[in-house]
Amino acid sequence: MTAKRKDCSPEKMIRPIVRRLNAYIPGEQPKAHDLIKLNTNENPSPPSPKAIQAIRNAADGRLRLYPDPTCQALRAKLASFHDCRPENIIIGNGSDELLALATRAFVEPRQPSATSQQQLAKQTVQYFTPSYSLYPILANIQGARRNEVKLLSNFDLPDNEELRKKNWNLKAALTFITTPNAPSGRGYTTQQLAKLCAAQKGVTILDEAYADFASENALSLFKQNPHVIISRTFSKSYSLGFQRIGYFIGHPILIAALDRIRDSYNVNGLGQTAAIAALKDTNYYRKLFESIKSTRTSTTAELKSLGFDVIQSQTNFVFAKPPRLTAKDWFDSLRNDKILTRWFDTPLVREYLRITIGSQNDMAKFIAATRRIFRR
Amino acid sequence: MTAKRKDCSPEKMIRPIVRRLNAYIPGEQPKAHDLIKLNTNENPSPPSPKAIQAIRNAADGRLRLYPDPTCQALRAKLASFHDCRPENIIIGNGSDELLALATRAFVEPRQPSATSQQQLAKQTVQYFTPSYSLYPILANIQGARRNEVKLLSNFDLPDNEELRKKNWNLKAALTFITTPNAPSGRGYTTQQLAKLCAAQKGVTILDEAYADFASENALSLFKQNPHVIISRTFSKSYSLGFQRIGYFIGHPILIAALDRIRDSYNVNGLGQTAAIAALKDTNYYRKLFESIKSTRTSTTAELKSLGFDVIQSQTNFVFAKPPRLTAKDWFDSLRNDKILTRWFDTPLVREYLRITIGSQNDMAKFIAATRRIFRR
Repeated sequence: MTAKRKDCSPEKMIRPIVRRLNAYIPGEQPKAHDLIKLNTNENPSPPSPKAIQAIRNAADGRLRLYPDPTCQALRAKLASFHDCRPENIIIGNGSDELLALATRAFVEPRQPSATSQQQLAKQTVQYFTPSYSLYPILANIQGARRNEVKLLSNFDLPDNEELRKKNWNLKAALTFITTPNAPSGRGYTTQQLAKLCAAQKGVTILDEAYADFASENALSLFKQNPHVIISRTFSKSYSLGFQRIGYFIGHPILIAALDRIRDSYNVNGLGQTAAIAALKDTNYYRKLFESIKSTRTSTTAELKSLGFDVIQSQTNFVFAKPPRLTAKDWFDSLRNDKILTRWFDTPLVREYLRITIGSQNDMAKFIAATRRIFRR
Repeated sequence: MTAKRKDCSPEKMIRPIVRRLNAYIPGEQPKAHDLIKLNTNENPSPPSPKAIQAIRNAADGRLRLYPDPTCQALRAKLASFHDCRPENIIIGNGSDELLALATRAFVEPRQPSATSQQQLAKQTVQYFTPSYSLYPILANIQGARRNEVKLLSNFDLPDNEELRKKNWNLKAALTFITTPNAPSGRGYTTQQLAKLCAAQKGVTILDEAYADFASENALSLFKQNPHVIISRTFSKSYSLGFQRIGYFIGHPILIAALDRIRDSYNVNGLGQTAAIAALKDTNYYRKLFESIKSTRTSTTAELKSLGFDVIQSQTNFVFAKPPRLTAKDWFDSLRNDKILTRWFDTPLVREYLRITIGSQNDMAKFIAATRRIFRR
């Protein structure tokens, strides 16, 4: 650096709000190949052979072209799948991108001068704890206010009367509800969600990343409520995490707002190709969902028989509290046995492990290792 | 909608700043297959066979896994390619994503109460006109102030003294410089850019999307200036537009700031795979760049011989002003002949057409059509 450039400190060029953010800590992506990976809720089965074939067929000189910037074919396919119009749908580079876009489209950054209830609500992102750990990060990046409200101690949704006591803000600009919830795995009934949505005044996103593993979903609520958006993803149930395809379904006016602030070519071409092909093979996926649910049932039963407290799961993972040992001890011991699960060091949640439902074989090894650990 | 929900107007839930944005108009993606597409600066040749093969080899059950969130392997490969460290590099979902992240990391939204020169500069995105049309859109989305300064009438860069007269703000929080420039195709020398960068006080992004087609690039300037970031993309020169891979090279502190606000899994897996494979086949690409430059030379000579004013191009397109007819007439006539080019209806630029360098065959057809049009 020359003396002349001493005035030029990179730190000072970064917005204070961004300077204050914590460095991003990526999820554990172990290099070892002999690990059993039950830590990031990936599907143990491959995507539909049709999706794989579609990618191979599309991998040629056409890669030189830009992808469809509006994902027209995929949106048309999804519209017919969900019985709505293409204008109700926006595709994202994973649903994470869309959750971030929603924060930027619907929530004002915090203004210290704001005092009225209405102003404060416009600057508020609201969600339950525990739920998807991305929401507070998105609020912080936007410089918005966070309103975190605790779920009941059994991880169920408080009813509207309880929410009123708990400082829940029905006028919050944006509310995220993970349903079924992570990391608890608990499902909420459409009836519960309908009551909550009916009372909400701001945009309410029902984040249904795990809905394909549940006994019901709340898709219908977007049709009854212009402020309700449904979020879905191909990453978990469709085994396409590698290609980053998620989508929102909602009122065309809200969808159009997100559309105006997204990157023009936000969704890669082979991801679009794979998702379209996957939707043509619903039989394959229906069997796959059933298989995961069946492994989930047996895993839950095994753990319960060993004295674990297991939350009834509506997702592709189970959330279990061990007897005698702490969850952290269990986590560490499994790791020593080359089995990776997820432990979150936050109140209440730190008493549990989140275990992705892997293949039957992987789960047998997980149960065997758990038996050994708790026999000691 | 029930009467109860009348209070719930979707428009009112959208931030005023987003409500005011113009709807996104995607680039023309014609359905007809017999069109010659010289409108979006795509490379006429396929990507390296190694990149295609790498995608086919990776398209299997592993698609179920999340991609590497930090693009470690690709960043290591690029670091060795550009003789820098992985910490100098961030990968984006196309360089468009990174340009948007830069706006959000480095530029404050406009505050009407701001009055000091320093406050105003912190809220300012600055760029030359004409250049990449995305910059004003990004500034508007962020709610930032725009400082647009005209290039010279021959599209060259004003020198520092001229800039001072032109209301250029050396303290602007973020300056974008497309180099070589689009849509003019003109290159700027590293010497010119070095002088400008040395005077700049804010983050300065040299957007080198077309650098592989130029006789020199300004990569070295990021090493001499902690506030200078180089932007590159695999979309055009590497024929991988379909898979959305771009990157920034810059000071680790600026790169880390962008890293903190990006989506965790922002880069799709097959895109990472293809880009790594492409970098292993530099011979293939070197020939490809030479071939495009050679077709550019012959196209330029042909047009000049027909009386066109052609800007000396350092990119994979030419910018040409026709004799007798208007550029719009030329554009329309070419379209009738099923040849798609790009015409921008903005001052000065509207006198020219931007024509992507296609295959030799496509360019022969383009020249033949142009001869016919101007013989009439």
